[in-house]
Amino acid sequence: MAELPITRTLPDPPPTALPRGFTAHVANVGIRDATDDFLVLSSDRPAVAAALFTKSCFVGPSVVVSRQHAADQSLQAFVVLSKNANVATGDRGLADSHEIVAGVAKAIGADPSDVLITSTGVIGRPLPMELIRAHLAGLSTPFDGIDAVAAARAMMTTDTVPKVASAAVGEATIVGVAKGVGMIEPDMATLLTFYITDAEVPAEKLADVFGGVIDRTFNSLSIDTDTSTSDTAAIMANGEAGPVDPDAFGAALFDVALSLTRQIARDGEGATKLLLVTVDRARNTDQARRVAKAVLNSPLVKTAVHGADPNWGRVAMAVGKCSADTDIDQRRVSIRFGSQEVFPAIVDDVALGRLASYMAGDEVHIGVSLDTGDASWTVYGCDLSAGYVRINADYTT
Amino acid sequence: MAELPITRTLPDPPPTALPRGFTAHVANVGIRDATDDFLVLSSDRPAVAAALFTKSCFVGPSVVVSRQHAADQSLQAFVVLSKNANVATGDRGLADSHEIVAGVAKAIGADPSDVLITSTGVIGRPLPMELIRAHLAGLSTPFDGIDAVAAARAMMTTDTVPKVASAAVGEATIVGVAKGVGMIEPDMATLLTFYITDAEVPAEKLADVFGGVIDRTFNSLSIDTDTSTSDTAAIMANGEAGPVDPDAFGAALFDVALSLTRQIARDGEGATKLLLVTVDRARNTDQARRVAKAVLNSPLVKTAVHGADPNWGRVAMAVGKCSADTDIDQRRVSIRFGSQEVFPAIVDDVALGRLASYMAGDEVHIGVSLDTGDASWTVYGCDLSAGYVRINADYTT
Repeated sequence: MAELPITRTLPDPPPTALPRGFTAHVANVGIRDATDDFLVLSSDRPAVAAALFTKSCFVGPSVVVSRQHAADQSLQAFVVLSKNANVATGDRGLADSHEIVAGVAKAIGADPSDVLITSTGVIGRPLPMELIRAHLAGLSTPFDGIDAVAAARAMMTTDTVPKVASAAVGEATIVGVAKGVGMIEPDMATLLTFYITDAEVPAEKLADVFGGVIDRTFNSLSIDTDTSTSDTAAIMANGEAGPVDPDAFGAALFDVALSLTRQIARDGEGATKLLLVTVDRARNTDQARRVAKAVLNSPLVKTAVHGADPNWGRVAMAVGKCSADTDIDQRRVSIRFGSQEVFPAIVDDVALGRLASYMAGDEVHIGVSLDTGDASWTVYGCDLSAGYVRINADYTT
Repeated sequence: MAELPITRTLPDPPPTALPRGFTAHVANVGIRDATDDFLVLSSDRPAVAAALFTKSCFVGPSVVVSRQHAADQSLQAFVVLSKNANVATGDRGLADSHEIVAGVAKAIGADPSDVLITSTGVIGRPLPMELIRAHLAGLSTPFDGIDAVAAARAMMTTDTVPKVASAAVGEATIVGVAKGVGMIEPDMATLLTFYITDAEVPAEKLADVFGGVIDRTFNSLSIDTDTSTSDTAAIMANGEAGPVDPDAFGAALFDVALSLTRQIARDGEGATKLLLVTVDRARNTDQARRVAKAVLNSPLVKTAVHGADPNWGRVAMAVGKCSADTDIDQRRVSIRFGSQEVFPAIVDDVALGRLASYMAGDEVHIGVSLDTGDASWTVYGCDLSAGYVRINADYTT
């Protein structure tokens, strides 16, 4: 990682204990620099699990191996190597992934098929297996009592802060972690986000709830329209706290995932503002999401938000781009910044003053009503700044 | 227009005479500042014509009116108002467009239905009709003998140079002009580009050739993925030079449109490099164009090109985003920068030195071979710089 002149302004999350029956191990293996680059998040016993992966046709071997291991909805550990994506590394990369899984499985006394492995970082470089092999040889349980913040920090690449969220549900807790700042428009999963809970949840229910939650959170997030080759979202429920109310569990999991989604958006590469776009009164949720994404991903909208400019003409342009939505009639569309309607309403000077101070804040919410139906969807992203360009023009391979 | 601290580095095109039987009028009407903002490009008699328009569902009244007027494939004048798009201006905007068309038609002695009108600039502001009305009242022929460069200059908004190209075909010439630097990913047309020729071409043939040429040029261009509400491409052929070889005409028109496409890309907002992406050995041209656009529009690829970084991992990521193309197998994909294969080939130090100097040039050509068929497509764009952000965060409504 090149040294980047990025001012770090976001605070660390508070220390967050892991749910009962989970432990974590972090280390610097030396994959790229001296920061932690190796994480094992382990359950004391096999847990009910669900996982979602990128749809990229250029996936790395970690995704290939993890897809197989998650298929039976049973997992005992998440392994993360950061600073190297192990993507486009051919047969050697696949063998490396299998070897790391086997090493971790042996250390924690698990079946290799109960280990999920993920990697994130530069594409096209082989892993430094000598260093990793040496570390695995010395790995043993019990792990140190590290918390979720240290675990999240070990996953970071160009993230400026670790992302952690938690919620209680009955006697159980749900803890989630995530990483990622760029190459983020997840398609069925996110860059890397992991959830562990001691709630007891049946496998089928877990997959169902998890898919729905990720769809409304990480799959509704875009930093830069670029879909990673390594996206993975996974959850383990070890049942140590016993059964919980299913609806309460879904709501708590949504809260955790939404908090992480917002944390990722706010720490997007070069971001200075969190940008939310809600499209309502749409024909269906697909239309609402498609139009919301068009607005969220418009570089002209993103730069206007960066410049604190309530430029609704650019929002109208982005809605207009959805030319396949022939039921959208510009005479029935309305556009809001925060609670202030800006089209077709004419904004008077008093409202314009309020709007200027709203736009100068660190969270901007754009609303669009289509009047084609009753569906709505919200998506999450950030503004586009010169910092984004600087980070990505200077991040050398 | 705010004063923008953008260094102007591109040279003006050379003076370019209009084809026989065409004249032009430019003026400053005072729409926004003191630069020319009004253009009439007129044929001495009705000409065979073809026109293509944006597919946006937020089109302005100029597009609505011009679609009707171009439908019969006969036109006598193109009118351009720059610095104001006359979009999202409701019934008043529609009445204004009709009034301007009528005024120009009267001045040049044409039928109003033979006048095509376009507007470009800020969205959501009514036109200053008092000023325009006063100018139209004094407008008369013959026009001054201004050339295509002055005509192209009158169309400019934030363009740093006028865009002009011409080609000879038999006894005839084709002259094209274009404008646009941002909000550019044309969808069936371009921001604004006009062609005039004294060749004699049957209406059906003209529409056919024009559609094919625009598809391979302006519809293969993207500055920032944002599709304008005002895109218009149109051609008039007045026949004064007599018939020409149809294939030679198509080739010459392609040359003119391609030159303008490259000029637009090179003058993209904040651009420092022309970026071309060719996808070959694709299943069909749709697949080739879709994958090429994914690479061209990836902000991570664009910033890497800006930083002169041959970061092929980001190209692989962008190919991988085309997840609906399930026939793409990463083991059969190859990637090139210029003529240098970078994946799966391993680049040695000598080649790496050559590659570094290639990437530092002002034109970068990325090639991707999919090995799924025989089709190919090339798309045109530019790098993403901090200048793009500065221009668009500071350009106030």
